[in-house]
Amino acid sequence: MNYQQLVTQIKQKKTFLCIGLDSDPDKIPACLHAFADPVLEFNKRIIHATQDLCVAYKPNAAFYESRGIPGLQCLIDTYKHIPKDCLSIIDAKRGDIGNTSDQYAKGFFNEAASGMGFDAITITPYMGHDSITPYLQYEGKWVIILALTSSAGSRDYQYLETNDGLLYEAVIKKANTLAGTDRLMYVVGATKSEEFTRVRKVAPDNFLLVPGVGAQGGSLEEVCRYGMTKDCGLLVNASRSVIYASNGEDFAGAARAEALKLQQQMEEELSKAGVI
Amino acid sequence: MNYQQLVTQIKQKKTFLCIGLDSDPDKIPACLHAFADPVLEFNKRIIHATQDLCVAYKPNAAFYESRGIPGLQCLIDTYKHIPKDCLSIIDAKRGDIGNTSDQYAKGFFNEAASGMGFDAITITPYMGHDSITPYLQYEGKWVIILALTSSAGSRDYQYLETNDGLLYEAVIKKANTLAGTDRLMYVVGATKSEEFTRVRKVAPDNFLLVPGVGAQGGSLEEVCRYGMTKDCGLLVNASRSVIYASNGEDFAGAARAEALKLQQQMEEELSKAGVI
Repeated sequence: MNYQQLVTQIKQKKTFLCIGLDSDPDKIPACLHAFADPVLEFNKRIIHATQDLCVAYKPNAAFYESRGIPGLQCLIDTYKHIPKDCLSIIDAKRGDIGNTSDQYAKGFFNEAASGMGFDAITITPYMGHDSITPYLQYEGKWVIILALTSSAGSRDYQYLETNDGLLYEAVIKKANTLAGTDRLMYVVGATKSEEFTRVRKVAPDNFLLVPGVGAQGGSLEEVCRYGMTKDCGLLVNASRSVIYASNGEDFAGAARAEALKLQQQMEEELSKAGVI
Repeated sequence: MNYQQLVTQIKQKKTFLCIGLDSDPDKIPACLHAFADPVLEFNKRIIHATQDLCVAYKPNAAFYESRGIPGLQCLIDTYKHIPKDCLSIIDAKRGDIGNTSDQYAKGFFNEAASGMGFDAITITPYMGHDSITPYLQYEGKWVIILALTSSAGSRDYQYLETNDGLLYEAVIKKANTLAGTDRLMYVVGATKSEEFTRVRKVAPDNFLLVPGVGAQGGSLEEVCRYGMTKDCGLLVNASRSVIYASNGEDFAGAARAEALKLQQQMEEELSKAGVI
């Protein structure tokens, strides 16, 4: 899915919601436990209930890798159930030297090799451009680089003042020399809306993947005020607040209700900003 | 394997070699292609031929994940073939928020959950302490944090001057507040021997995992001059130069010959420094 197709989906569906499939076997409803793969069944029903309300799904690799072979099979099957009109993002936060990044790219982008052909991958930038460029060989696929994250640990290094601005600004500036807004997005944590202004100075037009709205308490309105572009330029992620909205048999309906609330707020923001 | 056990292995075997199992199906000898899992057969023979000459094996997860389910099965089986008197390191370079790091820790440290119970994992520090502490819950396991890497991209961010020293120094200083030398190691690239002095100022006693000797041209002698501690304090990794020493039927013997050369140099360095 390229830049223009993503913008078209956002305008048609009136939403820029990304749903994080951080599906933990210990947290999914008991009514699914009898299925051969309860997590896959959970993901299928969550996707079925929410696919008209979001433009992206983002499984986090860790929640699948923790279960060994059955977990990886579940991730592969989940990938196959993500509708083609939604951006499929693997939240893998990989980052390694060039010949190793080639292998990760194959693992997540090359369906013939691994069973998975995601549209986008999250990348950690510590090792520099070697960690990014191998993924760009896959035409039309996206690299989403960690810039400013929303967890407590983000304070440890990302805000260090460097000789090229704050570390997260330096990350964006250098990465932007590697590819354009049609290939690179950045992760920017929504609990720090005041930072969006700084980010938009160095990444005025890139899409930003924004975690931390919902369970982590970020304000959607503030994110939009400081982060939205003329093409929207935002994918706002919600994971736990949507997928675990209910622990009962009504879990899919409850997830839909939560996603609908977010979609309605997003529609309002898109309209306010003149995107739709 | 704890700190003292590792030091004992180094002194007994007179080596601090780590062999990187970055085993690429496209690069292993043709004579193995008829095996059900050629990469596993390759790894088993490499391990069998070298286990008295090294103290650690380090499969890089990417080379297995790129092949989907068969690749993960190969990684699990390879883990099981690493001898118990060698430190088993999964080179995964993971880094995520706390609840996600919990899942990665389960995936690589909890054998009952995933099939793998490695002794140590490599971690990328960009997201801060959340990326590190979950692994420390597993008593006796090691976290090996990327500090200064040896690839071209390391120049992009790791050498940025920050308000807490160069970025890689800041990484080490903050991480060292989380655990001691019995739990934390650092990755320090061997192509930059002059930097070992800086690293040893902030990590005087931690073990350092040193890539880049061999194929990447680092000098073992220089690494030892600036990096060795009274307990050795070094694990020097060689991957391609050992495992791909020959592409013929003699590949295991050729790998052994390369490993032996390194072991003999290491014995000399250990003796010179008075460790043995």
